[in-house]
Amino acid sequence: MQTPTNITIKGILGILMSCLDEKNKKRVISLGMGDPTAYSCFTTTDLVQDSVVQTLESHKFNGYSPTIGLPQTRKAISEYLSKDLPYKLTPDDVYITAGCTQAIEVAISILAKPNANILVPKPGFPIYELCAAFRNVEIRHFNLIPEKGWEVDLDEVNALVDQNTVAIVIINPGNPCGNVYTYQHLKKIAETAKKHKILVIADEVYGHLAFGENPFVPMGVFGSMVPILTLGSLSKRWIVPGWRLGWFVTTDPNGIFKNAKNIERLKKYFDICGGPATFIQAAVPRILEDTKEVFFTRTLSILKNTSEICFRKIQEIPCLTCPQKPQGAMAVMVKLNVSLLKDISDDIDFCFKLAKEESVILLPGLTVGLKNWIRVTFAADPSSLEEALDRVKSFCQKHSHQ
Amino acid sequence: MQTPTNITIKGILGILMSCLDEKNKKRVISLGMGDPTAYSCFTTTDLVQDSVVQTLESHKFNGYSPTIGLPQTRKAISEYLSKDLPYKLTPDDVYITAGCTQAIEVAISILAKPNANILVPKPGFPIYELCAAFRNVEIRHFNLIPEKGWEVDLDEVNALVDQNTVAIVIINPGNPCGNVYTYQHLKKIAETAKKHKILVIADEVYGHLAFGENPFVPMGVFGSMVPILTLGSLSKRWIVPGWRLGWFVTTDPNGIFKNAKNIERLKKYFDICGGPATFIQAAVPRILEDTKEVFFTRTLSILKNTSEICFRKIQEIPCLTCPQKPQGAMAVMVKLNVSLLKDISDDIDFCFKLAKEESVILLPGLTVGLKNWIRVTFAADPSSLEEALDRVKSFCQKHSHQ
Repeated sequence: MQTPTNITIKGILGILMSCLDEKNKKRVISLGMGDPTAYSCFTTTDLVQDSVVQTLESHKFNGYSPTIGLPQTRKAISEYLSKDLPYKLTPDDVYITAGCTQAIEVAISILAKPNANILVPKPGFPIYELCAAFRNVEIRHFNLIPEKGWEVDLDEVNALVDQNTVAIVIINPGNPCGNVYTYQHLKKIAETAKKHKILVIADEVYGHLAFGENPFVPMGVFGSMVPILTLGSLSKRWIVPGWRLGWFVTTDPNGIFKNAKNIERLKKYFDICGGPATFIQAAVPRILEDTKEVFFTRTLSILKNTSEICFRKIQEIPCLTCPQKPQGAMAVMVKLNVSLLKDISDDIDFCFKLAKEESVILLPGLTVGLKNWIRVTFAADPSSLEEALDRVKSFCQKHSHQ
Repeated sequence: MQTPTNITIKGILGILMSCLDEKNKKRVISLGMGDPTAYSCFTTTDLVQDSVVQTLESHKFNGYSPTIGLPQTRKAISEYLSKDLPYKLTPDDVYITAGCTQAIEVAISILAKPNANILVPKPGFPIYELCAAFRNVEIRHFNLIPEKGWEVDLDEVNALVDQNTVAIVIINPGNPCGNVYTYQHLKKIAETAKKHKILVIADEVYGHLAFGENPFVPMGVFGSMVPILTLGSLSKRWIVPGWRLGWFVTTDPNGIFKNAKNIERLKKYFDICGGPATFIQAAVPRILEDTKEVFFTRTLSILKNTSEICFRKIQEIPCLTCPQKPQGAMAVMVKLNVSLLKDISDDIDFCFKLAKEESVILLPGLTVGLKNWIRVTFAADPSSLEEALDRVKSFCQKHSHQ
């Protein structure tokens, strides 16, 4: 097998970090990764930590769990997700994964068959492409439309589908765009998938992180119309991305996807996956049941504030355009107008020179599929965010034609 | 892709458990799984637990780690493994995995290419076959010779190798046989691999769990002769199998395997794997450096005792033969002579009837590749082990021709 040539977010950020100028006395500010734990305003609650300390110290959860996950953990996640659905999921619908990354890997691997293709959004999350490359699945990109709140170009989806298309990936709340889809748009996506008899892979790793006009609607709401594979994790909402506790859920009340053959295949696939630690799994029921609403509200309020700072600051920079105020998740896409800059050739060049001259890390849009765009993470403390974007502004001024 | 038809250990044990007779008042004793945490005499030390509580409560390790693992964890593992090698591993040789299962999955996936085949021992560990089936890698079995302490049949290996063979798997200390290979035998295996220019995948998940005549010698000792991929974990030696903290190590001082292309491929592959929790990784340096020798000695002494009870008790049962006293790991293979039994057709039938009539779970040998053999785990407390094997004895008496 050939090694995939894909660029990965961590790969490019690693190279950018190595380009920092050590003689530069400015402190390094990274708005490149979606890991808010780097900033002290984003900290999980004591309850979440205590729950894990408790299961660890009980000495009851040092042994193996079933490879698909502990029964009580599967039950707790099915109940948590069912709260927002018009029907009940069962514990059998839930498979525990090592973070959402492994849930993506399972989804792609389980759907892999000769000539299969999967539709993924552009811009999107490059792990889909990398997984597909390793599993010999063809990727077909459909565009998200910046002028329409990054909605899916459904005409393009209709044109891309063929008899080998097995699924469409929807990331909502959106990474990298910071958008949140309306109920109506999600319904149209579900109708399109139903028409073509393809699955929806609903990547909801940022589930519930919506702080704008549109509320978060889980794709599973349309599970009676079309089978949904819901992917999620504790990572973002509970601010513990390093815990690697995720889920792969068959949101499929009519049992179209979850026939005996697919279930057997899924269970066998989990036998070769190393899942998350048993004691972390065992803490999930308490975490899901007892986390106080005030913790979630606080996170949303911080993100709303930082997203507004980000949007406002970017508006002050002539060569950057943000098509829409972010409404969810932790990052936003901004368009780079290189014609206003005298010595910057593209988004990659912009980010490398910015790292070197200003010690600020931003993610080149090419990494997520859009050349001459830039992804800016706003999950940072307000003062770091302001300082970073002030430096971006002065960088742009220095490099502008005027 | 077809769903693999492989039998898995957890799969068959699950079915056996469902066959228990609920009206039977005897307590269930399972000698089926290699998970010692079910028995209170096998408990990890406070230091190990405390190390994780400490990193968790530091609030420093809730974020993402690099996908190949934290630098300090990779360093600690390289130093730990180097103690027993004639050369030094570097942190760059170490990749952190979600348990040894994921290390196996990485090894098989990274070596997958069209028509590739891998040599695996029979009896062996069925995850190799399952992984290979999912990754379209051909498996070729070589026999371990019971009369020679389960040594590898090297003549057979020589006959099986062809130009598409990429690796040979060696599990030492042995699962399912409980053997420990001598330095001389490992050297012969390395010479054979070198001759055929194939890699050795050294599964050392039971590393250091040797309590008999032969000391544990890591395969990496021969890394200068032939590249070794060493797989291991905290699971068995530290009695925390549910923590899912393992490693994939390139034990390859001459850099034959770890060329730039393979390293790039490995690093990309880790980008799609969900590894272990960052805070567990962060505890590894302290665990590896500070675990007291007395903890290891105590575990070995218990295993030596239970392995001897197991061996002695099996000798009292005419239809079971143990070709060799176990010397390591946590289980042993015993041969079933069905001709001495009147109404038992094979190992599967034996284990199902035993579960139903005596509430004792043993693993049918077919699961690990040997029909009419049985795997008995001796990582149990002495009284449970004695009681279970007494019940096996009376079961055999009841079903014997006499």
